[in-house]
Amino acid sequence: MSLTEVTLAIEIGGTHTSFGLVDVKGNSFVESRIPTKPNESPESLFERLFNKFNKIYKEYSYKYKLQGIGIGAPGANYYNGTIDYSSNLNWCYVNIVEIVKKYYDLPTVITNDANAAALGEMKFGAAKGMKNFIQLTLDKGFGSGIVVDGNIVYGKDGFAGEIGHTIVEKNGRSCGCGRCGCLETYVSTSGLIRTFYELISQLNEVSVLKEFPPEEVTARLIYDAAKNGDKLANTTFEITGKILGEALANAVAYLDPEVIILSEGLAMAGDLLLTPTKINMEKNLLNIYKGKVEVLLSGLTKGNAAILGASALIWHEIQKMNK
Amino acid sequence: MSLTEVTLAIEIGGTHTSFGLVDVKGNSFVESRIPTKPNESPESLFERLFNKFNKIYKEYSYKYKLQGIGIGAPGANYYNGTIDYSSNLNWCYVNIVEIVKKYYDLPTVITNDANAAALGEMKFGAAKGMKNFIQLTLDKGFGSGIVVDGNIVYGKDGFAGEIGHTIVEKNGRSCGCGRCGCLETYVSTSGLIRTFYELISQLNEVSVLKEFPPEEVTARLIYDAAKNGDKLANTTFEITGKILGEALANAVAYLDPEVIILSEGLAMAGDLLLTPTKINMEKNLLNIYKGKVEVLLSGLTKGNAAILGASALIWHEIQKMNK
Repeated sequence: MSLTEVTLAIEIGGTHTSFGLVDVKGNSFVESRIPTKPNESPESLFERLFNKFNKIYKEYSYKYKLQGIGIGAPGANYYNGTIDYSSNLNWCYVNIVEIVKKYYDLPTVITNDANAAALGEMKFGAAKGMKNFIQLTLDKGFGSGIVVDGNIVYGKDGFAGEIGHTIVEKNGRSCGCGRCGCLETYVSTSGLIRTFYELISQLNEVSVLKEFPPEEVTARLIYDAAKNGDKLANTTFEITGKILGEALANAVAYLDPEVIILSEGLAMAGDLLLTPTKINMEKNLLNIYKGKVEVLLSGLTKGNAAILGASALIWHEIQKMNK
Repeated sequence: MSLTEVTLAIEIGGTHTSFGLVDVKGNSFVESRIPTKPNESPESLFERLFNKFNKIYKEYSYKYKLQGIGIGAPGANYYNGTIDYSSNLNWCYVNIVEIVKKYYDLPTVITNDANAAALGEMKFGAAKGMKNFIQLTLDKGFGSGIVVDGNIVYGKDGFAGEIGHTIVEKNGRSCGCGRCGCLETYVSTSGLIRTFYELISQLNEVSVLKEFPPEEVTARLIYDAAKNGDKLANTTFEITGKILGEALANAVAYLDPEVIILSEGLAMAGDLLLTPTKINMEKNLLNIYKGKVEVLLSGLTKGNAAILGASALIWHEIQKMNK
């Protein structure tokens, strides 16, 4: 029996570091994870990770042949193989690729989670076969991966694709980055909650959510309330979609993409977000783009999207090398 | 004596169509032009152009060997070889490459003037050796060419790079495109004039330019007045630079470019525009980009920048083919 070629995909998250073996078609064979400990050194994290992985891989080595390793992590720099900054992990300029190569001397690539998600959509998800699109991860933050001509846009230093930190409102909401009015402060799960309280301050409207203290109100609660007909909650989604749609119309003017894909967090709200987003994007598009750009939900619905993204990252690299 | 390899570079402008022979180093040997007649068919324009060019080329054929033809024109579509729309020329979906190939069966490429200018800067100008940058043409309109990883970003249908039509002011100034608040309505020679009159309406300030009827006030006059210490004219440039700087900070978040190059029209104002642009860009940049992105004036100061751009376009293509 011939061996199945697989990649090891790793996602370093704030609470867990996940990994899995993924073949070129996006089939994930072995998935597992270890806790990410706060203030642990990267060397120690990878020692624990490879202790666990090696045991699993040994068991399956009669079946799988490892071709490369792909890693998705916040603050990762594709060019340098490093994590340049990570508020979660307390790491600064750590050369991750170097650490990993001590365990397996295979092609190894790292990028940030949003770029990995974009490649995941291109290889296995909603952007299959596309060469120009934008992927947005609308979680607590606003991540973005831009694909032009079949490759991630990394820019000069590997920091391209920070659409969440374009300023959409002068003197707007204060952002974690230290500036004001970033798109992320409006369009993210935390931005949704802020919009809800802005509406409470402006409108004299009843809402079931007024029973909850602000600390307990989540994007999920606003979603549930909206689904149950709560007007304030529905308006919250409409405004969020309007701001996103306007921002996307500008993104289209930069990049003329085939589709824009929304994933995670806010994207789980489906049509509640998608409908006002599409309407307002279309309304604000320059004529030459009208009716030509689709807004879709992530196609990575099966399995762990982050693992598929990290795997797509290294498969993409291997395929470039074999060209 | 061996022949010098050259490209024929053509720029279709509103009043003149220029052409020249340009070698791989950007030396331009023969330049000439014919008038662009309103409502003339493209077939007829190119007949006149090649009548003139062929005579010149015959004379020099002992010296030069034609390798390809590059064309810059507003509304041109790189993918299709067409001019898709052109308000100046009254042409719609004309296949230019097909027409040109009847005269010379050589590699022939067309793109819009802003993209050609960007390639011109990369091959011969201020972006020599760079792979990630943005080129802005700040004339009556606001053209932009985006270079990522050494290639123009064309997007799905060839319409990427319309930064001038990103909306920077909700419910802002009405734009020729039918929408409101486009960057072009603020940052262009015509935008500068509009800002001047907005300031007249808002401030109670003297200005030498109040002697002129609005129809006679040009960007050049505002520039001259500013240079002579006119306060209103100076404020006009400061505000224009502020709006451009803020927009560029957002552009950097998309693309992480090495430099941003300003050319033509407004860019001729030099430091009057450059200083407030740089200050306001820097002020609005996300931390990771601060101090890393230069704003420069065009490096295509010798000769016809449009001709050099069109030549760079076809040299870029020939070099890709030879890889």
